[in-house]
Amino acid sequence: MDMQSLRETVRPDDARAVRETVASTGFFSADEVEVAEELVRERLAKGPESGYLFLFADDGADTVGYACYGPIACTVGSFDLYWIAVRRGHQGRGLGRALLRATEERIAQVGGRGIYVETSSRVQYHPTRAFYEHFGYRKAAVLADFYAPGDDKVVYCKAVAAEREQAPRSPSVAP
Amino acid sequence: MDMQSLRETVRPDDARAVRETVASTGFFSADEVEVAEELVRERLAKGPESGYLFLFADDGADTVGYACYGPIACTVGSFDLYWIAVRRGHQGRGLGRALLRATEERIAQVGGRGIYVETSSRVQYHPTRAFYEHFGYRKAAVLADFYAPGDDKVVYCKAVAAEREQAPRSPSVAP
Repeated sequence: MDMQSLRETVRPDDARAVRETVASTGFFSADEVEVAEELVRERLAKGPESGYLFLFADDGADTVGYACYGPIACTVGSFDLYWIAVRRGHQGRGLGRALLRATEERIAQVGGRGIYVETSSRVQYHPTRAFYEHFGYRKAAVLADFYAPGDDKVVYCKAVAAEREQAPRSPSVAP
Repeated sequence: MDMQSLRETVRPDDARAVRETVASTGFFSADEVEVAEELVRERLAKGPESGYLFLFADDGADTVGYACYGPIACTVGSFDLYWIAVRRGHQGRGLGRALLRATEERIAQVGGRGIYVETSSRVQYHPTRAFYEHFGYRKAAVLADFYAPGDDKVVYCKAVAAEREQAPRSPSVAP
């Protein structure tokens, strides 16, 4: 996945693209698909003030994956990563990784300190949890029976390394 | 506090009442006061579909306290208790307790299973944490440095006893 094909602007037809992308994964309930699309509509209605920031992965004219994240109100530098999803048929090409990395970079650029991700304890979400763990997210909390009886909320957190301006090269000290 | 003076309907002037109530406590930052008022505006704009439910405690023509709560999207029976605040000068009369109890009853009536409250680890919030602990909320998670460096998020949870219709009296088995 070439990073150049990531897009931050949000367009009206992204509501449909997000709905189709999220639904195509087979991972999410109808309610969850609805929420995913609603965040795009909130963003379209209110702009960045909505608190929902997006990264879309475009493949030609098709949007094949996206991330949705944003600053958490009343915190200094904490961000929620609300969604990452890659359309079925486009998975396994590193798109999820590229979206995650690019999201982390953008959060670091605006001074973010920590990124939070919430997911489910269900077996179905094992690949999701493994994905975040692979990229350095650690389990910060488990809320038992949060989503439903037997379905816990697992909160992952990753500390963000602040972006600094490129340090100047050390002067040569060769003898 | 007589329970009859609690009100669920939301009126346009509640935005101001909430702002004044929250600000009067001296507990909350300008950002937090803004968020508290914004939830009233969301509710006024979208109705109960906003996901924000309210209880107002009225003292004559004055609104002197309120609770804001709502179902958590994509969960079965989990509720957030977003705010409870009592106007300075009206504290210490059991209003907070009455609002909390009435909120719990309403959540139970609609089949809620669990209530979540998020607060800060700061010393300033010790009375807040003590309040919830006194009423049976247990510390379910701590997210270090969530609000700011050194300012953790503490998540409290209380299981809700489902409201049942009054069981009929057992028939008399007196001999």
